[in-house]
This record gives sequence, C-alpha cells and structure tokens, in this order.
Amino acid sequence: MKIICAQSELAKGVDIVSKAVPTRTSMTLLECILIDASTNEIHLIANDTEIGIETVIEGTIEERGVVAIEAKWFSEMIRKIPDSFVTIETDNTHLTTLTCEKTELKVPGKSGEEFPRIPVLPMTNAIDISQLTLKDVVRQTSFSISNGDNNKMMTGELFDFKDDILKVVALDGNRISIRNIKLDQQVNERKVIVPGKTLKEIAKIIGSSAEEKVRMFLNENHIVFQFNETTVVSRLIEGNYFRIDQMVSSDYDTKVKVNKKSMLESIDRASVMSKEGDKRPIVFNIEGNNMLLSIESVFGSMNDDLEVVKEGKDLIIGFNPKYIMEALRAIDDEEVSLYMVNTKSPCVIRDDADTYAYVILPININVN
Amino acid sequence: MKIICAQSELAKGVDIVSKAVPTRTSMTLLECILIDASTNEIHLIANDTEIGIETVIEGTIEERGVVAIEAKWFSEMIRKIPDSFVTIETDNTHLTTLTCEKTELKVPGKSGEEFPRIPVLPMTNAIDISQLTLKDVVRQTSFSISNGDNNKMMTGELFDFKDDILKVVALDGNRISIRNIKLDQQVNERKVIVPGKTLKEIAKIIGSSAEEKVRMFLNENHIVFQFNETTVVSRLIEGNYFRIDQMVSSDYDTKVKVNKKSMLESIDRASVMSKEGDKRPIVFNIEGNNMLLSIESVFGSMNDDLEVVKEGKDLIIGFNPKYIMEALRAIDDEEVSLYMVNTKSPCVIRDDADTYAYVILPININVN
Repeated sequence: MKIICAQSELAKGVDIVSKAVPTRTSMTLLECILIDASTNEIHLIANDTEIGIETVIEGTIEERGVVAIEAKWFSEMIRKIPDSFVTIETDNTHLTTLTCEKTELKVPGKSGEEFPRIPVLPMTNAIDISQLTLKDVVRQTSFSISNGDNNKMMTGELFDFKDDILKVVALDGNRISIRNIKLDQQVNERKVIVPGKTLKEIAKIIGSSAEEKVRMFLNENHIVFQFNETTVVSRLIEGNYFRIDQMVSSDYDTKVKVNKKSMLESIDRASVMSKEGDKRPIVFNIEGNNMLLSIESVFGSMNDDLEVVKEGKDLIIGFNPKYIMEALRAIDDEEVSLYMVNTKSPCVIRDDADTYAYVILPININVN
Repeated sequence: MKIICAQSELAKGVDIVSKAVPTRTSMTLLECILIDASTNEIHLIANDTEIGIETVIEGTIEERGVVAIEAKWFSEMIRKIPDSFVTIETDNTHLTTLTCEKTELKVPGKSGEEFPRIPVLPMTNAIDISQLTLKDVVRQTSFSISNGDNNKMMTGELFDFKDDILKVVALDGNRISIRNIKLDQQVNERKVIVPGKTLKEIAKIIGSSAEEKVRMFLNENHIVFQFNETTVVSRLIEGNYFRIDQMVSSDYDTKVKVNKKSMLESIDRASVMSKEGDKRPIVFNIEGNNMLLSIESVFGSMNDDLEVVKEGKDLIIGFNPKYIMEALRAIDDEEVSLYMVNTKSPCVIRDDADTYAYVILPININVN
C-alpha cells in the first residue's frame, strides 16, 4: 500500500475514528486503526464490535492495500508531524513508513485482513435530523443514563419514533429525562435502545450546524448514523424499554414557576454544602409566592430565598441537589415550571409545548 | 467580629492566601483561612508553617475580631455567592454567618487565637524585581527542581545575589538550569535556597506586569516577598548549595547553532516514540551542517533531519528527549547554541550574553 494525503486530512480522520477504539480489549487488533486503500478511496476504520466508525479521507492512492496501525500512537504522532503531505507506505511484512518533509517514521503495522469490518447493512428509510439537534438532545438527556450495569437498558437511551416525533428518553432509577423532537418527515413506528456510549461519541464528532444533517437508518440489531464522510454503526441494546408514560403524570397539587438562572445558582451554592458523598437534600419550602431553599450539612447551613409564582398548595419537599441542577442545566428556557403532588412523589419539570420533561424523585425528609 | 466587603474583593483575597493552605496536615486549624479584623484593616492569612501568605482586602469593619474558616469550603463558596456585598459576622461561639443578598450561610468557625501568625521580620535592604521577571524566572528554571526528597536542597532553587546580579539555579542530578538576572541596584552578597513550592505558588499569584514590582527581603531563615497588598513569608532551605561553576564548563569541541522551534517540534515527535517509562534516548548525529535526530523504541523508529551551523568536530550523542525539550521551552530565543565536548560529557545550551545556561547530562549510547 502507498498513499499520500495532507496531514490535516489524516489528523481529522484519525480523530473521528479514534472514538471507536476500545481502551481495553483482549483483541489487540482492535486497538488499531485500519487504513483501507483497497478500493479507489482511502477509508479509516475503527471498531470495538459495539460501535464501528468509518470515514473517508482525501488523498492519492499510489498502490492499493490495507494496513492496521496502533491507534494511540498513530493519533498522537499524526498531530505532531508537520502540516504538510504525508506518504504512508507498507512493505510485505506490514512494516509501515510514514514520511513527512524530513521526518521518517517506521512502525510495525498489522495485517488488515482479520480486522473486523463494519457490518454492511441495508440503508433504507433514512430518518434525517440536524447535527445540532442530535448534539443538543444528547447533552440534554445523557447525564441521566445510569453508570452502573445493573440493568443494561439503563446504560442506553430510548429512541422512540412515531409519526413525525422522535422521543428520546434516559433514566437511572432516580430520574427520567425526556425530549420530544419534531422531525421534518413521517417515520415508521419503532422503538430502539441506543447505547449511551454511542451517542456520547457521536456528539463529540458531529458539528453544531443546524443545516447539516445526520441520516439515521434502523436495522434489526443496529442503528447507522451517516454524516459528512463518516458512517457510525452501533449495536442496539436488546429489550423492551421501561414504560415511562405512567411515571410522568400530568396531575399536580403544586405548580411553581421560577427564574431558572437564579434557581440554578442557588442550588449550585447549596451543593458546596453537600460535598463528598454526604448526600444531604436541598429542601424547598414553598409558601405563598416564595420558595425558601435550605440545606444543612457537616459544613453548616444555607438558606436562600427565591421569588416564585405558585399555583396550588404550599409544600415542603427535598431533593438531591445534583439531580435538580443537571435537569436545569439541560433546559435552555429562562423560566421553568415545576409540578409536584406531595413530599413523596416525583417532581416534573416540563414546558407547555411538551418539548421536554424532567422527572426527579424526592429524598425523604422529616416534615414537622 | 462583623465585616462587610465586596464578593470580588473577598474572592481575590481568598484565592491568593489559599496557596498557603496545606493539603494534608495534622493540625486542622491550618486548613483554615484566618480573617483578622482586629485592627483597622481586614487581613486574610493562611500558613502551612513553611510558607505563609497574608493579604489585605478592602471592606468595612463594624466590629473588630478574628475568626478562622475552613479554607476549601470558604474558597468554593465565595466564588458561588452573588457578585454583591457580603456581611461576615461571628458570635461568641465562633459560629459565622455570611449574608449576601438573600443567601444566608452559617458555618462553625474556629477561634483565631491559636492560628499561627506569619513571623514579623525586619524589612530592610529591599531587593526589587519586576513581577514579570520573577514569574518568568520561575517558569524558566523550576521544571528542573527534583521531585524526590533524597536531597532537600534539590527541592529548592538557589538565589545567589552578588553585585547587581541575581543568579537563579535549579538542578535535579540530571540537569542544571541557570538564569542570570540583572537588577537595578547593587545588593549585598548572599546565597539562599528558596523552596520550589514557594516559588511556584508566588508565580501563580503575581501578575505579568513589567512595571509592578516584587520587593524581596532576606532574613536569617526566611525570605519575604511583598507585592500589591500581599506578603509571602517563606522559610529558607538550610545548607550550602552545590558548587555549580565547575559543572558549567565553557570548553567545547562541538558547537551547534540550530533553529529552536524546528528542534523542539522534532524532539516532541520523538517523545511520542519513547512513552511509558521506556526512556529511549534521542540520538543526535552531528555531521557537517546537518544534525540527524533518531530514536528507536518498541513502537518503531524515527529519523529527522535538521539544518545546523556547526563549529568543531562531528559528534554522536544521546539524551533523554524530555530534558532537552524542557530546556528549549524555557528559552525564548529563535536560535539556540549547544556546546558539547564528547559523547559522555554534558551538553550546555547557553547564550552569548550569559543570561541563561542549561546543562544536560547525556545518556550512554553505543557508538559504533
């Protein structure tokens, strides 16, 4: 194999596919990036068998071939060679020589023959979404994915397609984050669970353009994301996702409308009081048009007063400050509305247009 | 005690003195910042007994007194309260109430009576240096301080005052970094060893102004740095520092003049080849007006060619790439000159004006 391409093109491609290189694996070949110049295009491929990424880079193929190069070394080195043209050439032992200006690097490559290719799947019934929207929805939901693996489904997000709506759901047993996205097309009804890792890596790769699209394709066990010169293929998580409709009640006895920024800053301060696994609740004491936020911990105590617009009953209710903060940070509105029933029932933060709902379980507090 | 001051003033002061709060200590009182409003000024003080920092902040004293507050909590919280006026008030149990707009915080303070004050030292024979120069010289030398504590003196830097020159030296057994600073005044001859930690913390606090000064005062066991509203008092390290004059020879058999940026980029690439404690030397093969840089490691091999201006003999010599890189990064010149004798003698990188000298021991290599 012998190819010539610009350092910048190579660096961009390696950065994209690196997201699919596993950090730990028993199969050392997977720690490589495959350069596939066996056709008339140069493909870079990485694959951890859960998620595979393939991207096409510009360049000249002088001799067709494939080679696998250790990914960590490759991506570090590519960033440090001069911003010029790079020649990559292999011999029949896979010894790979990179030449760039006066720099010459020799590394032992691996045969690309056994490198697991990305499954070739039927690409029909494309569902389009803007790169910005997909990036946003991952930011707005993925923080409430469960880290643990007690339940594999909790490590993924539900993508629920119906009519012209994509509902995205993430939950971890303490909270549920829901976003409804209006699509520009009618889609086939389908529910799939996409691994959280896939979504987080895609969010890093795609741009923030509202004009540029991501095309999604659903297959039996896979979801494919296609954008620019890149294809991401991810396994789906098996199972029937939790039924969340019954958890997001629209009944309430207390509704509070509050300035999001003020509330966020106040809870951010409160969180300084509840550090180091000490998990003290922040207590909201809602009375009239006033919400008193208070927390007590080993450090001392904090009180803060927020002006609110209240409908319904007065209420005292306590939460993990982190959960409230993360939900508020995911909301871009200036004002938010909190819907509550009583001290023991979840609080729902949602907008009138039904674009989002954040459900948070309260912490038991002793109400005198 | 009752004081009122702006959040910004408090945040600035707490940030400065926090640098002297020990991370681990058996004396929990030292984990506090002392607010001393016992005179007509508000002083913030922290002291880890090696280094003490005191700064004066603006504010109103409504009732004189002192209190010690847990530093980590204090500095985090101060940054998160509104940008407004803060009232700090203590009762006779040292319970401290911070009020800022609608936020009220209560924390158990500690009596300031036993807080170790910063020693009051005679402030005579001030030596002035610009904040920029001091900041620069720490950056240009402190990387070669020894981390270990085999030899306490190696954890500090020599400040050698003579005539109108301050010579600053740091060494770790593999290399020596030397900077000569021309002062605007004649000074008394004196050699002291300043703890590296002190210098690094001061470099973080002082500005980058060439106009604003730092005043230094030398006492028997302490050095005092005074700037703006802040006083830093540090113990000196005892001992007679290493005699370095004989290690910095001006004899050479090979002199190489090279573009610093090109050389740095090349060694930076080479360092990617010598990762993970593998400590492979980078070999300079100097021949005619050419320097071939090469490295071999488990990853493979790299060759790079640099144009140089050579005086004297051809030479093959090997170094730890990290040591050469750190020296080159500390030099602001476009071109650097390397002086070498043979494969086993140290290389000296120095300028004609004698403002700096970086001495680096080579690594043994097999020269055929």
